[in-house]
Amino acid sequence: MWRDLLPLGRSAASGGYRRFAWTSADTDCRAWFRAQAEARGLTYEVDRNGNQWAWLGDPLAGQAVVTGSHLDSVPDGGAYDGPLGVISAFAAVDALRDRGAEPRKPLAVVNFGDEEGARFGVACAGSRLTAGRLTPDQARELRDAEGVTLAAAMERAGRDPAALGPDPERLARIDAFVELHVEQGRALDLAGAPVGVASAIWPHGRWRFDFRGEANHAGTTRLEDRHDPMLTYATTVLAARKKARLAGALATFGKVAVEPNGVNAIASLVRGWLDSRAADEDTLAALVAAVEQAARERGARDGVAVHVVRESFTPVVEFAHDLRDRLTRLIAPTGTNPVPVLPTGAGHDAGILSAAVPTAMLFVRNPTGVSHSPAESAAEDDCAAGVDALADVLEGLACG
Amino acid sequence: MWRDLLPLGRSAASGGYRRFAWTSADTDCRAWFRAQAEARGLTYEVDRNGNQWAWLGDPLAGQAVVTGSHLDSVPDGGAYDGPLGVISAFAAVDALRDRGAEPRKPLAVVNFGDEEGARFGVACAGSRLTAGRLTPDQARELRDAEGVTLAAAMERAGRDPAALGPDPERLARIDAFVELHVEQGRALDLAGAPVGVASAIWPHGRWRFDFRGEANHAGTTRLEDRHDPMLTYATTVLAARKKARLAGALATFGKVAVEPNGVNAIASLVRGWLDSRAADEDTLAALVAAVEQAARERGARDGVAVHVVRESFTPVVEFAHDLRDRLTRLIAPTGTNPVPVLPTGAGHDAGILSAAVPTAMLFVRNPTGVSHSPAESAAEDDCAAGVDALADVLEGLACG
Repeated sequence: MWRDLLPLGRSAASGGYRRFAWTSADTDCRAWFRAQAEARGLTYEVDRNGNQWAWLGDPLAGQAVVTGSHLDSVPDGGAYDGPLGVISAFAAVDALRDRGAEPRKPLAVVNFGDEEGARFGVACAGSRLTAGRLTPDQARELRDAEGVTLAAAMERAGRDPAALGPDPERLARIDAFVELHVEQGRALDLAGAPVGVASAIWPHGRWRFDFRGEANHAGTTRLEDRHDPMLTYATTVLAARKKARLAGALATFGKVAVEPNGVNAIASLVRGWLDSRAADEDTLAALVAAVEQAARERGARDGVAVHVVRESFTPVVEFAHDLRDRLTRLIAPTGTNPVPVLPTGAGHDAGILSAAVPTAMLFVRNPTGVSHSPAESAAEDDCAAGVDALADVLEGLACG
Repeated sequence: MWRDLLPLGRSAASGGYRRFAWTSADTDCRAWFRAQAEARGLTYEVDRNGNQWAWLGDPLAGQAVVTGSHLDSVPDGGAYDGPLGVISAFAAVDALRDRGAEPRKPLAVVNFGDEEGARFGVACAGSRLTAGRLTPDQARELRDAEGVTLAAAMERAGRDPAALGPDPERLARIDAFVELHVEQGRALDLAGAPVGVASAIWPHGRWRFDFRGEANHAGTTRLEDRHDPMLTYATTVLAARKKARLAGALATFGKVAVEPNGVNAIASLVRGWLDSRAADEDTLAALVAAVEQAARERGARDGVAVHVVRESFTPVVEFAHDLRDRLTRLIAPTGTNPVPVLPTGAGHDAGILSAAVPTAMLFVRNPTGVSHSPAESAAEDDCAAGVDALADVLEGLACG
């Protein structure tokens, strides 16, 4: 299974993945998903928002147990973030069949579209649309760096953007959603455990900071005549780091766009995107406000206008306690070491769905904690332990 | 003349120009040049490096007087930087004919290719090649942001990259080169003069700073586990400004490239380009060394490797004193106010040629000093005064 998926959308230069929503790499990954579904005799369908489903049992019967994740990637992402959850889902279905388990409830494997938001800037777009947390009009008007709308990109990929919209009937047919994911930190490694269960997702969001100055010649404009937004941006980057450290939280500028971006031209516009997360929403709000204030103070000095737009926000997610506890019992009924239960700073489709559906997550150990990078990894034994754990969970939820 | 040239390569969004070397906008500008030459019955030719020439008199006779500038632009550049010098050159030829002046020496109007270096990163590529200050092999291997080599771009534009090379015979046939250019500061405005003469070009260069850290997930990687090159870059931007102020010089980061440039990914690589200039070469070298030291100190803190490459360097240019003095006499033989003589921080083809050919520059007043921006401007009267001054100079040099 891995072998067919590994080369798709991989950059020869970085070794990382560039599987962005509605690109040809994404289409290739989707074809792989469909082939996996059909090879197992599962009922394949694509929902109105482009999410792919592979059903064992009747999709319309209700009380379904669903597992899966996403196949898209960040720019130069790793092989595991997303795909491990989809591959483990298919492998867990295989394991159930090998065990001779007979599900009483329908089982589905799902691939949610555009989880990373790498192309159109909104994470979890597929699950957000389904859950009604992104309106079809908002979604269709999202634009990538080249100005292509999501609607146009979907059309080019052969999908109908007019179909986008909430899908409450579909969600009502789901009894439980379980997403398996490679851990994006080192907590399991430090605990010496191959598999863990999620407790919560930190609240997080993305804020776009626009710093507007005045383009001018870098070789002839006196320093005192400049309105250079790069200076304001630089000050804001350093302020974000310092204030995150003081708050025990996270703040990152990882994406920048500059106009005109010429070597000998003072920038007219610097756009920087702030990704910030904290254990609770008050801390997060105070942190972002402090970064914004630092930006405005420096902007006043530089003669640069600062405009901040919150592009996305996801409140804290506490996963359903009873489902979470059931998972820990199903995975290690006889173990002496309890399964670690840990929070995460990363957003997931599971976080989006948790408002509508009882939802849980499994994490697989990541020895270096590296994520969103080609260096991301998980040991083969740990991946197998993840599949076993997921199969235990599905068997308990669907066959019990 | 202006009317035909103005719309070429203009961005509807910014109102600025995007006339990059060997693009379709560049081809359009070149067709305009050729049409202007032919409309005047001038002998049109393109030299081995893609520079365009329009001759009044025998191109091979020697002792030629040449004037002109460039038609390409920085990203979102203004209408005057470059084109004013080419248009004024054709207009000055018209003025000489109206005056009934009879040149004893050949006269030429020139359009040097790729002066701004906006696409391939090397400024004054056309004149550098001709003067032997950029080798054909170096030039052919230059790459734009999409990885297209200059050789491939030339071929697509119908030019032969194998022909590139130094052209000493051509330079030996030139007695004087005079480039008219819109001023890129406010010195003439402060002096109340429409036209001035250049004394010198500050030494200047471009340095690429590569900050290499480690890509990781912005939502899950602890601050203390990060190697975030954006922090090192930000510190370097602020250090460059401060150290330039202390040195009475200029230092600007106006261009940045980030990998992977994802909102929720800590950057693995930030590239920033430093443009720096000073009145003398020692000051410039000390300034760049100080910026580099600040980058390395912060890089050591961040666990980020700093690598600095000097991409281009142009030594100080002192224009030929006798030609310069002759210009000031030719322009204002009866005036009571002397013509201002001023240095500039901007590089020009005139600076490149000055090592091989007696070279001078005329500046036309720029009321705001704004340059490399759509807001760049010059009053119509001042442009006319520039044409008159250039005609005076050409008449004095070629007919006297």
